[in-house]
Order: sequence, then C-alpha cells, then structure tokens
Amino acid sequence: MRYEEFTIEGRNAVAEAFRAGRTIDKLFVLDGCQDGPVRTIIREAKKQDTLIQFVQKERLDQMSETGKHQGVIAYAAAYEYAEIEDMLHLARERGEDPFLFLLDGIEDPHNLGAIIRTANLAGAHGVIIPKRRASGLTATVAKASAGALNYTPVAKVTNLVKTIEELKEKGLWFVCADMGGETMYRLNLTGPIGLVIGGEGEGVGRLVKEKCDYVASIPMKGDIDSLNASVAAGVMAFEIVRQRMN
Amino acid sequence: MRYEEFTIEGRNAVAEAFRAGRTIDKLFVLDGCQDGPVRTIIREAKKQDTLIQFVQKERLDQMSETGKHQGVIAYAAAYEYAEIEDMLHLARERGEDPFLFLLDGIEDPHNLGAIIRTANLAGAHGVIIPKRRASGLTATVAKASAGALNYTPVAKVTNLVKTIEELKEKGLWFVCADMGGETMYRLNLTGPIGLVIGGEGEGVGRLVKEKCDYVASIPMKGDIDSLNASVAAGVMAFEIVRQRMN
Repeated sequence: MRYEEFTIEGRNAVAEAFRAGRTIDKLFVLDGCQDGPVRTIIREAKKQDTLIQFVQKERLDQMSETGKHQGVIAYAAAYEYAEIEDMLHLARERGEDPFLFLLDGIEDPHNLGAIIRTANLAGAHGVIIPKRRASGLTATVAKASAGALNYTPVAKVTNLVKTIEELKEKGLWFVCADMGGETMYRLNLTGPIGLVIGGEGEGVGRLVKEKCDYVASIPMKGDIDSLNASVAAGVMAFEIVRQRMN
Repeated sequence: MRYEEFTIEGRNAVAEAFRAGRTIDKLFVLDGCQDGPVRTIIREAKKQDTLIQFVQKERLDQMSETGKHQGVIAYAAAYEYAEIEDMLHLARERGEDPFLFLLDGIEDPHNLGAIIRTANLAGAHGVIIPKRRASGLTATVAKASAGALNYTPVAKVTNLVKTIEELKEKGLWFVCADMGGETMYRLNLTGPIGLVIGGEGEGVGRLVKEKCDYVASIPMKGDIDSLNASVAAGVMAFEIVRQRMN
C-alpha cells in the first residue's frame, strides 16, 4: 500500500519530488554513491531536514519494485505536516486551553492513525511526532485515522524534549502516560496540557519522561503488562476530557 | 499467517481435526459435493455447531495452498474457547461482581486481540463473541492480545441476544456503547455488568441494543464519526474501572 502510493524511486523522480515541495519522510541512498545528481538530492534533503539513510545495494533492491532505483528511494508523506503554532492557534480560535498529544516512538501506522482519530474526537488541537522512530503520514495512517488526518494537525519535530521545553514556556504542562506513576484519576489533568504517549514495547523515553511534570498511570488489574498504545492513549485522553467537562 | 498455521485442507486432515476435538471456526465445502467422506465431515461439523459455508470450486482453489483440498477446507481456532460459566466462576473466585465484554461484530482480528488485552487489564472476567460476524481466535488475534488470550476466557455463542437474556437472569445488567445514549460519566456503571461493544462500521445490532439496559456514549468533540472499536472499548471499560474503584 505504502509502496504503491508513496515510494518514489530513481534520481529524476526523487529530485522532482523535492523540487515540488513534497514532504519526504525518509531518503534511502546507496552507500558510497557520490556522483552529481545524487549529491544534489542529498543537499536538498539536508536543507529540508529529511532523514537520510545510507544503505547497501541489496536493501535498495529489496525495497524497489521497478528495479530502477538508481541508488535513491524516497518515502513521501501522504499528508502535509502542520506547525505547532497552527495547533496553538486552533486552541485560541476555539477559546480552549491547548490540548496536545505527543507521541514518543509510535512506529505502527495503525496505532498512529487510531491515535490521531482519538485526538480528533477528544477535542485535542494537534498531534506531535518526532522525526525519528515514528511512522510517517502514509496511506495506512490516513485510513486508520478514519478521516481525522483531514482535520487534526500533525507536526513532526526534530527533538521532542526541546519541543516540550518550548511549549512549557507557553504555559503548557506535561503528563506522561507510563507505569509506576500516580493513578490518573487522582491527578488534576485540566488546563493547558500535553499528553505524552510512548511506543509499544519501549514506552516513553527517559529524557522525555524527565521533562514531564507528572507521570500518570492507568490502573491495571490483569495478568499482562500493558495496553495497546492506541488504547492507552484513548483511555488517558478521555480521562482528560472527563476532568475538563467537570 | 492464519493460513500457514490454522487452515486444514483435505478430507482426511479435516475429519481428523474434528475427531481430535479441535475447535473448527468455519468449514468450507464444495457446493454440491455429496459423497460419503464429505457427508461424514458435514455431519460432524453440524454436531459441533460449526459454521458451514458451501462454496464454488474457484473459491476453494483460491484458499488452498496445497491445491489438494479435495472439496473441504477448515479454519481451526488457535485457542480453545471457554464457557460463560467459567467466567462467572472466575468472578466468584475473586469475590468480584461479574464484568464481561460482549462483542457484537468485531471482525478485525487486531481489534479483537486488542480488546481481549484491554479486558484482561481492566479486570474483566471474560469476553463473549458471537459465532457469526466475528473473527476466530487466530494467531493474529493471539499476537494482538499480547498474551491476554492465555488468561482471559473467550466464549463463542450462537445468539448474543439469548446470552444476554440468560445472564440477566443471573443478575447481570447490560450497557451498550453507542452514539446517542447517555454520557457514560453520568451513568452508574457499577455492579455485575456486561459491556456490549459493536463492530467498526455497523455498531451494535438493533436486537442486541434493545436488550441492553442502558446505552452509554463517550462524549465526542471532533469532526469525525467514531473511535476505533478497540479504543472505544478501552475508554468505556476504564470508566467502569474508575467507578468500581470509588
């Protein structure tokens, strides 16, 4: 799915995509390839802060469908990313305290889509994802979001910790969903808030967690470790909604 | 995935699976095929209340990997189903009011797995799914359940409406998650409870909904229709947990 619609192969096609201002999530370049056209593409990618990965020919051959990648394959985003300022603007426009989702390492596109869907329905003003360790806004994400991607802005940032610091200066405070914190029902989750959700498996990164004002936990009664990441995001988000309604 | 591990092809293999007491989710039989061995399989399938589908040869050929289906293909369950009595027993054992999930038409195995995972962590005593319009307990479901399938009993019933009636006699009451109901925060969701979740798209069936004591709604603020089914189940389940904790 992703392949057919959002993989761009070959020097001309990739260079054209950059020229057209298309958002490229990731650029794969043949390791050691140094000729003019490829250097131009790399320069363009760096200018736009695109993630570049230098890989062996075998990897490119594997990813390629046409067999004519010429040493470059790009993953393009299905949707355009927004700026964080757009989200704060949306909150002001609605006369509401900002309510943002920050996703630290959600790599599964179904989960990312489901979380964007949840963010929309919980009345959040946007979803922030990091450049690294995150799924791009592919067709799968769009489908799993059930249309929410058309309404809820999604921003991609280089450094989540820095973003949290900047948003704190704008009056937001941050709650991180993780085990071993205070039961979420006991915390005051009202006001301008950023909800930080970690990825399946690793959870929220240490540096990000340290920046959060609180760690909130969903009370777990069962035999296994943790909820699915999109379910956890939903449960936590609607506890925020509940408290905001009171 | 499902195919490699849980499809059984050919007369001998399918007959053997029935003899061994293996749970067969669905039996596909070549339409018009009337010879002895096939009739024996069909009789066995009916005895065990297995869903039988009569299909054209092309369909069987498509499903078959070995090319030697001989007119019969069976889908076997990855896990054994439990009985509802097991769930009530589990509740009694723990000294808790019964808390059951009833899924009306969850066809996506990822969602089914995620919901079983949620049921486990919310402290529910079991998950009830209907024979029709439901995913079986395949490898995909098991994986998405993150191990919960080893702990949380799942029962398959012929008729959800009848099951609800029977459980009502045992003191349970039923809340159905759907739009247009009372906001869930305003309902009393304590006591012996069955939480009814509808499938993506169609939601809870009319007859099932009519049997429910309440329709509970998650407050929706966004631009799109509904949450992902497994997210909705999680949000609703943890509102029940919250009220039970108070």
